[in-house]
Amino acid sequence: MSFLDTADAHSIAEQVHTARLSPGTVAEHFLSQTNARESRIRAFVALDPQVVRKQAQGLSSPGINGLLAGVPIGVKDIIDTCDHPTGFYSPIYDNNWPSRDAHVVALLRLAGAVIMGKTHTTEFAYMQTGPTRNPHDLNRTPGSSSAGSAAGMAAGFFPVALGTQTAGSLLKPASYCGLYAFKPSYGLVSLEGVKPLAPSFDTLGWYGRSVRDLALVAQVLVPGLPQSARESGIRTFGFCRTARWDQVGPVVADALLAAVERLKAAGHTVTTVDLPKDFADVFDDHLLINDCEGARSLSKEWQSSPELLSPSVIAMIERARGTTWEQESAAKARLAAQAPRLQAIFAPFDAMLSVTCGMVAPLGLETTGPSDFCKCWMAFGLPQINLPLPRLPGELPVGFQLIGGFRQDSRLLEAAQQVDWALSDK
Amino acid sequence: MSFLDTADAHSIAEQVHTARLSPGTVAEHFLSQTNARESRIRAFVALDPQVVRKQAQGLSSPGINGLLAGVPIGVKDIIDTCDHPTGFYSPIYDNNWPSRDAHVVALLRLAGAVIMGKTHTTEFAYMQTGPTRNPHDLNRTPGSSSAGSAAGMAAGFFPVALGTQTAGSLLKPASYCGLYAFKPSYGLVSLEGVKPLAPSFDTLGWYGRSVRDLALVAQVLVPGLPQSARESGIRTFGFCRTARWDQVGPVVADALLAAVERLKAAGHTVTTVDLPKDFADVFDDHLLINDCEGARSLSKEWQSSPELLSPSVIAMIERARGTTWEQESAAKARLAAQAPRLQAIFAPFDAMLSVTCGMVAPLGLETTGPSDFCKCWMAFGLPQINLPLPRLPGELPVGFQLIGGFRQDSRLLEAAQQVDWALSDK
Repeated sequence: MSFLDTADAHSIAEQVHTARLSPGTVAEHFLSQTNARESRIRAFVALDPQVVRKQAQGLSSPGINGLLAGVPIGVKDIIDTCDHPTGFYSPIYDNNWPSRDAHVVALLRLAGAVIMGKTHTTEFAYMQTGPTRNPHDLNRTPGSSSAGSAAGMAAGFFPVALGTQTAGSLLKPASYCGLYAFKPSYGLVSLEGVKPLAPSFDTLGWYGRSVRDLALVAQVLVPGLPQSARESGIRTFGFCRTARWDQVGPVVADALLAAVERLKAAGHTVTTVDLPKDFADVFDDHLLINDCEGARSLSKEWQSSPELLSPSVIAMIERARGTTWEQESAAKARLAAQAPRLQAIFAPFDAMLSVTCGMVAPLGLETTGPSDFCKCWMAFGLPQINLPLPRLPGELPVGFQLIGGFRQDSRLLEAAQQVDWALSDK
Repeated sequence: MSFLDTADAHSIAEQVHTARLSPGTVAEHFLSQTNARESRIRAFVALDPQVVRKQAQGLSSPGINGLLAGVPIGVKDIIDTCDHPTGFYSPIYDNNWPSRDAHVVALLRLAGAVIMGKTHTTEFAYMQTGPTRNPHDLNRTPGSSSAGSAAGMAAGFFPVALGTQTAGSLLKPASYCGLYAFKPSYGLVSLEGVKPLAPSFDTLGWYGRSVRDLALVAQVLVPGLPQSARESGIRTFGFCRTARWDQVGPVVADALLAAVERLKAAGHTVTTVDLPKDFADVFDDHLLINDCEGARSLSKEWQSSPELLSPSVIAMIERARGTTWEQESAAKARLAAQAPRLQAIFAPFDAMLSVTCGMVAPLGLETTGPSDFCKCWMAFGLPQINLPLPRLPGELPVGFQLIGGFRQDSRLLEAAQQVDWALSDK
């Protein structure tokens, strides 16, 4: 067991800053991890060791002193990079080499990060799955759409990875793969150079090896985000089962309810919250808007190369064509009217606790399970964090969510740190 | 005077469809216009006649049968094109050649359009102006930031052009240059491949030679937008002076009030609307959010090349640094709370009439005048159309706005057609 097997980005950058580790040594460690397991995991759609080494060896000021000095990062393949192809898992974009980095990739490089490669996504971050397997059980999906970033994290291929979320694409894989994940409030992170799906919801987020790493990457990618003020103290949580609690199996329910008890035992307050009945519409409204916006976002591909689109994308476009303009407008108006009511419900709490996925990772690679428990917060752009729940050796991972009020990202990160400490006896 | 000097895209495409004009002939006409006047107007930052000819001569199915068959289009230089550089009017992006077209450019090409070249923008579509002159008076600004697209339209270099608007960047130049302009509702047009400034407001729009052309381009760029249903009949308008009427000079006020009288004489109803007093905050809220989001959008450039940013961008970033997270959140919450109230105010009307700019185009090329009359609707994502008002020969152009309810783009386009007919005695 080497230091880098478990070291988080904080620790790695600290070692690089003090010259106890070189970026080249760090890169070689993670490259050796991919050598050992990538052929079975299939996290990467593009991985070039020479490109990785060149970045690591060429790291100079200011990057070598940056917050992510020498930290290898996996990048979901709907995010442009100038030194790798970007394919969106679509044959339409074979050999697409962007001429410049996405905004977030450029910020990561300025902070000293090393881009490890492009990680598998579903087609256009929608439903058509790729070959990636869950490192905890190769017969199971890692979840989607940020499949490669999540599986690569769980396999130890990089200590930080970028994903995106429109429904549950970041948090669902985090739950299935046992990862820390942070999806910031809608609109905080630039999507320049990131392929849009449903722009009302699309948000970039990331995986890390610790809560403090989730905050560290936020410092780099959300300039101006207030730094955490309170490091300790008790917190006030809501606990919301949502209208879909009947989809939660006993494994997840038991683990989550046990976690709630541990939080209470640690002195935190946890209050059960029921959302008003009309919030149950949110699942349908999210789906309808996702369809209509997705169809517009992919209208170019639909017009130019319909034969190269998967049945799931075509089905989405067909559903959008069967939806009237007024139906989409009404769905958006409902969400806009509900948003301030939800804000009021969240106001007393540092964060809301809820389920991320009702089940552990399903068997098979073709389907990845529902995203309802993520959608209902995504519809309102709220920040979300997945924390892995304590599990016995050999048990499949289970995560749960902490959801914050809109633009309360710093408060959410602080609360998540408290929860993680309480659950891991730190 | 040739047919193509005034023909709109509808007419041009019709001539191409019936083989009475070839795309090559159309392209040569517009290239000859640029030969005659571009050296004085400076609409283009990139114009390559060979690239234009190649597109026109290579036009085949489906483009040759498309809605914009053979129609030359100017593209603002913050929108990616694969066969021209994209420079954002910033030395940071000298020699930046995108590898693929922006989504909208790809859709235009699929519809048969010919990209004429890249048109001058202010730096990152913010305030630092370029060399473009107003064709109506070379000593005056064409307005910003879509300066080159507007000036090129007024000079006859192309019959359609793309611009973008975050504050008043599309409509202000339309008013100063005497153009038809349409900014759709927020979120309808894909911004994939368009440089973001303030993503809460950024919207792509276009100039055309007629109201029907504004609708024609909407058919291409907003798949699924309902087609206009009512071609004739009276319309119901509000007339809103806004809280900034004291900035409207007599030239604009007289022209607008005369137009209102003509509309009434044509049988339309026009009702004066005063917005609630608290809506006057919208100017400050738009500015504050624009600053904070602009600073985040340009954080990469600020970190990597601060010495290559203009004083106006740096001033924006400094203002953002002096703004707290809570102030930005509060501004966004105010707009979200006002939006449904504004929707209710708009509901009885087919469109709201208002000022686009309080003055004609100012003298000089360094400043372009305030955008307040656009900002107050941009803040809510409402669709806007600028129509040129009838002017005597030699008079500088004056425009006015029609604003629609959110996502009422088709209804707005219909109303604009009625207004244009009423004002032009058609």
